[in-house]
Amino acid sequence: MPSGSSRRTFLTAALGTAGAVATGGAGFGVARATEPGPAPAGAVVGFYGAHQAGIATSAQEHLAFAAFDVTTGSADELARLLGTWAAAAAQLTKGRPVGAVETAPDAPPIDTGEVEGLGAAQLTITVGFGPTLFDDRFGLASRRPAALAEIPALPGDTLDPARSGGDLCVQACADDPQVAFHTMRNFARLARGTAVLRWSQLGFGRTASTSTAQDTPRNLMGFKDGTNNIKAEEPHDLARHVWVGDETDQAWLRGGSYLVARRIRMLIESWDTAALAEQERVLGRAKGTGAPLGERREFDPLDLTATKAGMPLIDRTAHIRLAAPATNAGRKLLRRGYSYTDGIDASTGLLDAGLFFLAYQNDPVSQFVAIQRRLARHDALNEYIRHTGSALFAVPPGLSGPGDWWGRDLFG
Amino acid sequence: MPSGSSRRTFLTAALGTAGAVATGGAGFGVARATEPGPAPAGAVVGFYGAHQAGIATSAQEHLAFAAFDVTTGSADELARLLGTWAAAAAQLTKGRPVGAVETAPDAPPIDTGEVEGLGAAQLTITVGFGPTLFDDRFGLASRRPAALAEIPALPGDTLDPARSGGDLCVQACADDPQVAFHTMRNFARLARGTAVLRWSQLGFGRTASTSTAQDTPRNLMGFKDGTNNIKAEEPHDLARHVWVGDETDQAWLRGGSYLVARRIRMLIESWDTAALAEQERVLGRAKGTGAPLGERREFDPLDLTATKAGMPLIDRTAHIRLAAPATNAGRKLLRRGYSYTDGIDASTGLLDAGLFFLAYQNDPVSQFVAIQRRLARHDALNEYIRHTGSALFAVPPGLSGPGDWWGRDLFG
Repeated sequence: MPSGSSRRTFLTAALGTAGAVATGGAGFGVARATEPGPAPAGAVVGFYGAHQAGIATSAQEHLAFAAFDVTTGSADELARLLGTWAAAAAQLTKGRPVGAVETAPDAPPIDTGEVEGLGAAQLTITVGFGPTLFDDRFGLASRRPAALAEIPALPGDTLDPARSGGDLCVQACADDPQVAFHTMRNFARLARGTAVLRWSQLGFGRTASTSTAQDTPRNLMGFKDGTNNIKAEEPHDLARHVWVGDETDQAWLRGGSYLVARRIRMLIESWDTAALAEQERVLGRAKGTGAPLGERREFDPLDLTATKAGMPLIDRTAHIRLAAPATNAGRKLLRRGYSYTDGIDASTGLLDAGLFFLAYQNDPVSQFVAIQRRLARHDALNEYIRHTGSALFAVPPGLSGPGDWWGRDLFG
Repeated sequence: MPSGSSRRTFLTAALGTAGAVATGGAGFGVARATEPGPAPAGAVVGFYGAHQAGIATSAQEHLAFAAFDVTTGSADELARLLGTWAAAAAQLTKGRPVGAVETAPDAPPIDTGEVEGLGAAQLTITVGFGPTLFDDRFGLASRRPAALAEIPALPGDTLDPARSGGDLCVQACADDPQVAFHTMRNFARLARGTAVLRWSQLGFGRTASTSTAQDTPRNLMGFKDGTNNIKAEEPHDLARHVWVGDETDQAWLRGGSYLVARRIRMLIESWDTAALAEQERVLGRAKGTGAPLGERREFDPLDLTATKAGMPLIDRTAHIRLAAPATNAGRKLLRRGYSYTDGIDASTGLLDAGLFFLAYQNDPVSQFVAIQRRLARHDALNEYIRHTGSALFAVPPGLSGPGDWWGRDLFG
């Protein structure tokens, strides 16, 4: 772990990227960073705060998600990377380059340059720590939260190890896909020698609203998704279900959360041949309005006891019944997933498309794992989906300001 | 080939999707299509016209590109598919579903439903025919334009057959990625039994402007790309370089064009470690302004004879020198490519990202092939890129109105 002085050193090194900006020189990167114009109204999401942005933040339209494996054996180098990333994120989320794009002609540009002129596009950058980070490499074993246990194998899992796990994760969300990708790319670049990309996922078309100001979007099944999601305007639900509080066994995680990522492939071609009534029975909602079956409007309350001719209106195996808080001891998740498509499955010629599910919670064992265990056993939707990737991360709290970094209280 | 009566039959069948809309029933798809509200201003690009939309159309932000292989041996069935696609495209490009989303409960919805509420988002759908369509399966061998010859192997090619070729292509461009993907998905669905997806590519961040009203975007190398592209407002250049005219040996293609698609992977990590001066030497432009080296502004004329201290300002192997019309007997292409990223190359752990190059022209032999042959031999950029996919398509002219279809004059 870095001592006080080495901690200062790496922060200086990290901020050197911004420092280079201030020392001048010719070039648009420099000009931008020393004289930043006003950001387009509403385009900047604040980076610092009690919680990391990108969780209870109105969901942006695009996602670039990356999981990294740490390759160094040095806790100091790992901490230095987290400090460098924090300094870079503070710049990027303001719509500025990591550092000067044009530097000395004989040096590589510090920023890769492809987002020059695109603005911040509501970029948020959220970092998490996987269970493997707490093995014996970095002396962190005693700092591992009890709830940061690998997600157990669940019925029906068809997980690809190459799309699962990771020591670190970076979730970049923005309203411009190039801005989101730029973060992933530059974070991978800054990590050179310390960590390498393990897997990544692009997403489009947010599949949940996380603000009451947003319409409920449709997923690739054509249904509204996330109607009853936790919203940024619901502090009580956020405190109860999302933010880690005093109950944690690890003080460094207080104010943070846990992120579950699941790559859920939809068997698009099978779904598209299913009758409308079957699709609605499986999900438990009307495809057009999004209303629970038997109700008229999307936000009409879900009545799991309603019957028609002696049969439940919401099927016993319907997805919304099994996922409902009422069926799960009141437990809820903050969902923040995206649709994805990764071309064609070479083995079958079918589309590899679906939902990249991201969910935040303060206790993955009693929330995601418990809910998913029930779904995996009984959900009618299982006929049309496959879970092909899985990862869990502890997401530390927000950074207080310049000089703070992800994991300061973990490594300190 | 379909006779007059079978042609009418398949058009009726195709329009049956729209027909179902008109016959009523409950459901939001129906309501939308029978009483379409006004489209958001500027969101609809006209589908019918002398040329297909999606070529000299202001480039949208997102791409879903699909190549199909025809699986039927019946020319009638193939023609029926093209008619069905045309009827569907006329609806989709207005922001309407393929047909009713909600139909009878015991039938699958005609449209998959995920773009309900998203509008047209400037959707264009452009269809082309690959060289293989003119083999002996459909009696079209004598209708193959001489210029529709497979692109010859070029120096340095590292093509993946699974990302190359195809009997048919569909280029869907839109300002919303879900709208673009929806077209690919529903076209694949309508093709069931007649054609199957061969490969597909998603793209984001247009890498060329095709209108004088658009700024020049930056590609993933961080440089402005497409500064001297042919623009929609340049009818003389379009006639000279893009639209097939009376010179063609195949009248059915008059008013059409040829599309070359090349998946060009960038060796991102190598590029990012190259010094700024090296990056600028390779491309021949300043990274910041986009100006030719030695000039001040992006649109300053390119002077290939300029020297400094006896050395050419634009390197002899610089990309812009070798690609310039002046070096290529005045030949130009209309470029319409997109950035892509497809995650991580499992064999190396490096990003699989780059440029999905799309270019329209009226003579691929003297345009793309001749220019690329020179680039492949001498371009300094070759150190940082790999061509990993390749395809050529003849793109028929635009459709005149309802009842017209892609290839009517080819099959007729």
